[in-house]
Amino acid sequence: MPQARLMDGTVLARRIVEATAKKAADLTDRTGTAPCLATVLVGEDPASVTYVRMKQNRCRKAGIESRHVALPAATTTAQLVATLRELSDDPTVHGILLQHPMGEHIDERAAFEAIAPEKDVDGVTFASFATMSFGLPGFVSCTPGGIVRLLDEYAVDPAGKRAVVVGRSAILGKPAGMLLLARDATVTYCHSRTRDLSSVVREADIVVAAVGRPRLIRGEDIKPGAVVIDAGYNPGNVGDVDFDSAVERASLITPVPGGVGPMTIATLLEQTVDAAARQLGV
Amino acid sequence: MPQARLMDGTVLARRIVEATAKKAADLTDRTGTAPCLATVLVGEDPASVTYVRMKQNRCRKAGIESRHVALPAATTTAQLVATLRELSDDPTVHGILLQHPMGEHIDERAAFEAIAPEKDVDGVTFASFATMSFGLPGFVSCTPGGIVRLLDEYAVDPAGKRAVVVGRSAILGKPAGMLLLARDATVTYCHSRTRDLSSVVREADIVVAAVGRPRLIRGEDIKPGAVVIDAGYNPGNVGDVDFDSAVERASLITPVPGGVGPMTIATLLEQTVDAAARQLGV
Repeated sequence: MPQARLMDGTVLARRIVEATAKKAADLTDRTGTAPCLATVLVGEDPASVTYVRMKQNRCRKAGIESRHVALPAATTTAQLVATLRELSDDPTVHGILLQHPMGEHIDERAAFEAIAPEKDVDGVTFASFATMSFGLPGFVSCTPGGIVRLLDEYAVDPAGKRAVVVGRSAILGKPAGMLLLARDATVTYCHSRTRDLSSVVREADIVVAAVGRPRLIRGEDIKPGAVVIDAGYNPGNVGDVDFDSAVERASLITPVPGGVGPMTIATLLEQTVDAAARQLGV
Repeated sequence: MPQARLMDGTVLARRIVEATAKKAADLTDRTGTAPCLATVLVGEDPASVTYVRMKQNRCRKAGIESRHVALPAATTTAQLVATLRELSDDPTVHGILLQHPMGEHIDERAAFEAIAPEKDVDGVTFASFATMSFGLPGFVSCTPGGIVRLLDEYAVDPAGKRAVVVGRSAILGKPAGMLLLARDATVTYCHSRTRDLSSVVREADIVVAAVGRPRLIRGEDIKPGAVVIDAGYNPGNVGDVDFDSAVERASLITPVPGGVGPMTIATLLEQTVDAAARQLGV
């Protein structure tokens, strides 16, 4: 068995970002208004500060303005909700990114639901989850959306294939499964309570690992020839898939880093410009 | 192998309706206001007229008022949305049921989304789908909600079991799978594009047939000892499961009629009274 071909998220993401930058420039030329992403951060968790700064940098390079709202760690849910409603009502803001996870004292769901669906470029609201699930137009969660774009790029059509999603989080596993179901895969959700995970994963033509447990999925769990998408992010740039053994069995596999990761932010930027275009009536 | 035990929806539904009627009477005593379900029907499709009338009758017997809004077949989406928003804002209405399917010219999704989530006792809104999917408090789609109650009643714990849902409609298959996933089943969605449906169904400890194709699932597709829920409704009181052969393999099975069917309306009534209790602050 030859080694799997790599699904290169870096190259695809760069192409998407270039196209997005061109759209942003066109939009700015035609309307006099640049697309604007509001980034909202509660507290000063160093990792979150870094993530937000990176997103702002990427916005700037793509010709997207970003407006940062830094709230103190002691911000209440009510205050956060009020801030998000103001941004939702502000016509100069086209997309809203609420950096999460947040402190334990914040009702994350109440905060997400204060984001207007037409500005939910990170795909975190109930409405976005439902439109993803029902195959309706709307914004997607960025990582699952990036996964589907990677499959498209490598000509993997999920229709009729068995897809196994390991993980069921609200912004990763669940929407990833729903997007694959909307593309006519036969989708199985696995999680911490799944019995004999290996044998379930072995049924899959497409595996999406999205659980945040380092090297949980090993080569012997992979059906020969399967497509393996590793959306796990664990300390030390380690995915949820044991790459070295899985690459010997898969036909296509995402590396970590450089696979799913870059697609997430590319999707965020693209959706922000799409949101701006719609709101500016272009 | 002995024959499967029947899961009797008629008996369980009767018990739920009795408890609901008692809650409705208590609520009316304490607040001077009876729970009220608004039923909205567009056009005069005879089957829909019959369904709505049946629901009204069942409401009356349970001490729930119903207010019927009959709209002409030519009603536009905008008019329907306006009616549903009025009912959503009307404090004397506690639950809203929009009878569907409706005419092709109606944007069904726009209509559903005009129902306030706190009155969505039929579980059709994006918000209800998402709360079902994320295991959060909220109203459930009535048939999937009824299915889970039947499993509870017969002491079937989905945790760690393999559940296969055949069908992926927005109000039946998709939410049924999500409710089972929230109860820790390993859930697989099958549909018209699934290859070798029989072999996938044969993996299931719990089968939910929800596709509307008469006798699609046959005894030989059932793993011996599996629990079989037939949510299909086809002309002539025929389910999606071939009962006569499946009963020989399953450990528990719902009959058609008298299985899932009665649970749907019981769930609707129960959720209406719950909605009223919440809105009346009791």
